[in-house]
Order: sequence, then structure tokens, then C-alpha cells
Amino acid sequence: LGTVLKKHLADSWWKRFVSSDAQVHALDSSLMLPATPFEKSGHLKHFTDPLVDCRTCKQRFRADHLDPTTPKCPCGKLDDWGSERSEERFFNLMLETSIGPVADLGSKAYFRPETAQGSYLNFGNVVKALNPQLPFGIAQSGKAFRNEITPGNFLFRTREFEQMELQWFCREQEADHWFDHFVAEGQDWLLNDLRIGPERIRLCQHAPEDLAHYAKKTTDIEYLFPFGWGELWGFANRGTYDLECHGLQFRDQQRKETLVPTVVEPALGLTRLLLAVICDAYSVESIVNQSGETDERTVLRFAPALAPYSVAIMPLISKNPEQREICESLFAYLARHTPLHPTKEFSSTKIGKKYRRQDEIGTPFCITVDHDSVQDQQVTIRERDSMEQVRVPIEQLKSLSLDGIEQLFVKQKK
Amino acid sequence: LGTVLKKHLADSWWKRFVSSDAQVHALDSSLMLPATPFEKSGHLKHFTDPLVDCRTCKQRFRADHLDPTTPKCPCGKLDDWGSERSEERFFNLMLETSIGPVADLGSKAYFRPETAQGSYLNFGNVVKALNPQLPFGIAQSGKAFRNEITPGNFLFRTREFEQMELQWFCREQEADHWFDHFVAEGQDWLLNDLRIGPERIRLCQHAPEDLAHYAKKTTDIEYLFPFGWGELWGFANRGTYDLECHGLQFRDQQRKETLVPTVVEPALGLTRLLLAVICDAYSVESIVNQSGETDERTVLRFAPALAPYSVAIMPLISKNPEQREICESLFAYLARHTPLHPTKEFSSTKIGKKYRRQDEIGTPFCITVDHDSVQDQQVTIRERDSMEQVRVPIEQLKSLSLDGIEQLFVKQKK
Repeated sequence: LGTVLKKHLADSWWKRFVSSDAQVHALDSSLMLPATPFEKSGHLKHFTDPLVDCRTCKQRFRADHLDPTTPKCPCGKLDDWGSERSEERFFNLMLETSIGPVADLGSKAYFRPETAQGSYLNFGNVVKALNPQLPFGIAQSGKAFRNEITPGNFLFRTREFEQMELQWFCREQEADHWFDHFVAEGQDWLLNDLRIGPERIRLCQHAPEDLAHYAKKTTDIEYLFPFGWGELWGFANRGTYDLECHGLQFRDQQRKETLVPTVVEPALGLTRLLLAVICDAYSVESIVNQSGETDERTVLRFAPALAPYSVAIMPLISKNPEQREICESLFAYLARHTPLHPTKEFSSTKIGKKYRRQDEIGTPFCITVDHDSVQDQQVTIRERDSMEQVRVPIEQLKSLSLDGIEQLFVKQKK
Repeated sequence: LGTVLKKHLADSWWKRFVSSDAQVHALDSSLMLPATPFEKSGHLKHFTDPLVDCRTCKQRFRADHLDPTTPKCPCGKLDDWGSERSEERFFNLMLETSIGPVADLGSKAYFRPETAQGSYLNFGNVVKALNPQLPFGIAQSGKAFRNEITPGNFLFRTREFEQMELQWFCREQEADHWFDHFVAEGQDWLLNDLRIGPERIRLCQHAPEDLAHYAKKTTDIEYLFPFGWGELWGFANRGTYDLECHGLQFRDQQRKETLVPTVVEPALGLTRLLLAVICDAYSVESIVNQSGETDERTVLRFAPALAPYSVAIMPLISKNPEQREICESLFAYLARHTPLHPTKEFSSTKIGKKYRRQDEIGTPFCITVDHDSVQDQQVTIRERDSMEQVRVPIEQLKSLSLDGIEQLFVKQKK
């Protein structure tokens, strides 16, 4: 189900930031690259983390993640590291391999630590094929790899992860405008499309001394994970650093001018966004059940478009063949002919328990086929969050979008 | 545009073979894996190609791709290889890397050469989380890597590529039924959803002596590429080989029985399917233009749902601000609120040339906003293949699906 949730997140980003913007061009560049582009980009030199190890406990740590106010090793075995703490060494985070049939012929290759370099390397191809005017963007979504010293916090820091990155090429004097535009668009998407709680989102501008070697300005959108604030989305003004590294220029045919465009880069981590969306949606609430007793309900309150399943189709009585048949035929129709993501819930439990199972996996709407449905061709739709129910003809349901189903409940509340 | 075409191909497969089948569960397993699963699966031993090299020209060749009837090296420099041809050596195709901060501590890892092993390794997780009954499937789409000796034929054989694989777990006595089912479903999808020419598709059953070490039966769907027939989709009955390698079993709670299910695997190469779809769609045809002269037209006849853009919105007169404004507002609506994939064509060329540009990238429908549109709020839709045109109110167009737009032309032809 997490795979499907991640796909829906990636599709939502793609629709909002790639296919809805005629100035943004999609790219899918290779994960493996030879050494040359990484020499030019500075990755072989700069893409490192400081590593220290403890000679007593034999563990390794990121030097910049250690608390500078305590002289103790995090293992707790020593009161003072003293000579047991190694010198800091810089450890390159790129994963290396060897391509071609003979390893010793200088066929060294690296797995990309970000999608960005592939977008710069293909800058000339995009310009030649599509003849864009400034400003324009190159977007890609895909895997990246970093040989992290200390992966951890569930999906937050992993050696293999997914990114959704946009490289936006513009004139230097317009860079601030576009920087602010993308930060605002990013926040809007997180709050309104993904429906993340605004109190768990904040902006964090990097101090000049903390900027990466390529960056003129950086602002992160951070999320308040259960383990603390963490970066979700980095927005950087990378100036002309990257295109200059690779010796690239842009010819403006209309103004008869050759220039190196400035890059504004909104770089979002899909894997950690997935973790944020799950954390944000998770809630356990007290409700009063039908017998009047207080009960607990676990719900994943995903935005309907993100949920792995948008509708769960279930018979009131699972053993009833007529009810099952209506469910099967409705499932087949919705799965094949609509953009909805249906599932079937045929477990032999009571309807209340079926609803709870769907609440726990975040399905926003349950569709129940009962005795009457067989006669009147209507079904009951139950909303996850409000637990309200409405009765709808099957034919009407077949033509409703997900927004349309949600509207049924908004109307009812009024 | 190729990136978008590939995404639409992957989405079409996903909708047909994953989300429309309630018994198929999606997975996204890691690209990097430690050595142990590949020792168990036999990949470290068997996943090899036979390599020979020529001591004169220094080139390397796949021994099984050389013509056995000629003693010449393909370089043509020698009449007879004789002692200049090396012995055959077996070369392992898996790409290797080292994870963790210290390379010499046995932290060797491999990049997966297929998605399948990840699906077997997660078999227990899927069973535990979702409690499926037999038969059920685990599907994934993603990158795989093979250190090919001789990559080539454009996208047909590359060191980095994408697969769409389904592992279907069933009882042994049902394996033949499911094998035939998936071969038939695969053909149906290629012919009817992707609209590939039936004369360029054939089935090829492997002879018993050609089967891979894990396979009981294999049939390929092949496509007739410009360079010859090539495998697109391999269907294999893998028996119980894979689950046994990893020591996995299935407990059937209803029948109170423990067994090792048989695996039926439809394994499709997305990257080479992309190449097939482009080759299949490409056509150059003679047409009579408006001046009565014979002209040539280049068209990519993609199925409408696959085309990078489903509709191109264009003003009849590109400089006309009222026409442009209607185009912009229609683009924004379609991009945000419908499943269509619109683009804008604002180049300052004549309408006929705009149509041809869209023909060349395979856009099935062009929507033209003209002088009258400003008054009557109607637009002209032109179909790529027939070049027929129909006039439609903008409000009606906004609610049409891609099938609905196609139906406008089917009706007209009747």
C-alpha cells in the first residue's frame, strides 16, 4: 500500500509541477554516470561528510551530527574520548561501480547522488529538441544514491531514495522572483493538495556561512517529524555554477544574445515526503460506537487523491452472492473506466469492522452494497473522516470524480 | 517527450495489470541488495554471458551471438581467427558496489539485474501484511542493471533499463491455466490498448534445451524491430525454484495446508517496449495538400492514451491576443482538472504547419481557436490520423474524456 501511496504522491507532483506547466520539460536521465561530469560538478571533491570513529566501541559517526558540548562518545562507554576519538576524515558519499567487461580499464562509474546533474548534462539536448525560451524548466523524478555513514529515522535518511527535482533556467535578475514563486507553490501544494497540517510545516533560510559551495541562497521547507524538524524540500539559487561547470550556454534567438542562465532548483525528497504524509495522516481518536460505548478508532487521514485506494467496495453480507456480484461488477467498471482506485473488502466480518479496516489504511470512501441495492440499484457511500453516509444510485456513482464524491458530503453538511 | 511517452506506457500497464486486479499487490523493492540473496538465487553463479575476445583487434564479443558457421572475427581483419580467438570465459552481468563507510569490511552489494528477486524476498512481508489467498501476484516496475558485454540496437539492449514484472503465485495444477491467461492478456494489451500492428507481434516458445536454469516453460512475445525480431515480454513457469531458493512457504489457512506455490512470471521490458511503440507508430505517408500537390507527412500514430500530449491547443492566428487568451485558459483548465495531457502550440507559423509539428510528435487531437471562437465559444478539433475536423463548444470539450473526443470522429465517419 505504501508503494501505491508513493505513486500517487509522485503523480500529484508531476501533474502540478510538470504537466500543468507548459514551460517545464520532463526528463529521465541515467542513474549511472562516468566520472567526468562529477569531476566537473565538484562532487568527487565536495560531496563528502565528515567521519569520526571511536577506537573503543568501533562505531562510526557523522562529526557534524555529534553534540559539540559533550566530550563523550555516543556509545556511552567512555567518559571522555580523548585519544580514542579518531581525526575527522572526509568520506565521499557517491557509490562507485565498474562498467564494461573488463574492470581494470578505467571504466569506473558512479550512481548519481541527485537527479540534478543529469538535467544539466541534458540541457543542450532539451534546448536543441524543444527550442524553449527563457525561463524554462527540466524536471525529473527518480532514484538517487548516497553512501550515508548513518542512515536512520525510518525512511528519512536511506542509502537509496527517490527525488522529484526541477531545474529552472532563468535570467539572473528574475531569479529572486522565481525563487519566491516556487517556495510559495511548494507550500500551497503541501497544504492544499496534500493537506498537511500547517503547524507542522516551516520555512528555514540557510545562513550565508551554511550555504553549499554551489548556492547563492537556500531556503528549506521542513516538516515536524516525530523525531524533530527535518528537511523535505530544498529551494536553492544555484547561480550559474552548474552550467559553467559543464561549459554550457544558452542562445536567445529573439534578443540575439548568448548567456549562462541562472538556475533556481526546487529539490524535493519523495521518500521522506512519503514518511511525512504517513506521519501527518496518522491519528487515533475516541469515538462513541453504536452501543453507546467509547471506543478507539485508528485513521490515516490522507487527502482522497493520495490514498492507496480511493473507494472500498463491500457487500453488507459477504456471503450474499447477489451483493457480491454487484460489488464485482462495480469494481471492474471503476477500475477500468474511471480514474478512481477501487478495492474490494469481502472479509467475513461485520460492516463496522470492514469500515475500521479501511479507516486504518486511509480509504476515504466505503461503498456498501446491501439487500436494497439488489432492488433499487443504489449504494451507501460512507466518508472516512466524518463517518457520514449518503445513498447514491450506482449509475450516478459511475460518472462521479473523486472531487464529486467528496462534494456529496460537503453538500450534506450544509 | 520520450520520458512522457514512457510514463504513459508504464501507467497503462499499471492500470491494466496492477490496479485493476484486486489479487495483484504493488511493491517497490530496493535496487541495491547484499550478496546473500544472489548467492541463494543462483545469480552469482549463473547470471553470466559467454565472452570471447580477438587478440588482433582487441574487441570483445558475446560468444553466443557470433555466427557459428564462419571462422572469421566480426572485425573482418582476419580470415581465420585460429589462435587469435580467446577461450570462452563466463562473465557475470551484475554490477557491484560497496556500501557503508569502509569498503574492506565485506560490505559488497549488487544492483539488481531484474525486479523479480525483490518480489520473492518480500513474499513473506506481503503475505503477513495483506493475508492474500492463492492465487495472488506481486508486481513492480523499476530500474534494473546488467553489465552487458555488447549493448546496442538503440534502447533494445542497455546497461540500465526498466522492467515491469509480475510474479504470480498459484497452485502447481493451475500454473498452465495462468500461464496461458497472462500470455493472452499480454497480447490483448499490446494489440488493443497499445494498438501495435498484429503482423509485427509473434509468440516464440523456448525449446526445452534453451530454458533458463529456473524455468519449466517459457514463451516470449517478440516484436519485429527494424533490426529483426526481439523479445519484449517473457512468460515463464518458474516452478517452485525461486521460493525454495529463499526457503519460503505459504500457509493456506482455509485448507489447513502448507505448500510452496508455483511462480508464473510475465516479465516485460519497459525500455524496449518504448522503442517498439515508437517504431510501430512511425509512418511517412503521401498526402494531397490544399493546393492539390502531393506532399509527405510524417506521423507518429500512437494510441491516444499513450501520446506525450493528448491535445494541442493553438490559436489560428498566433499574434491574436483574444485567441491566445482562450487557449491559455483552456490549457489551464484541461491541465488541472481533467486527465488529458494538453500542450500549447503558439509558434508563429501557419495552421497547417502547426498540425504537422503535432503529427510528428504523435498528438492525436489539435484544438484550434479562431476568429469565431471568440464570439461563439466553439473550437475546431482536428484528428491526427484522418485529418477530419469537428466543431465543438468549449464547455462540452471540458467534460469530454479522451475516449469521448475519439468518439466524435467515429460518429462522424458513420
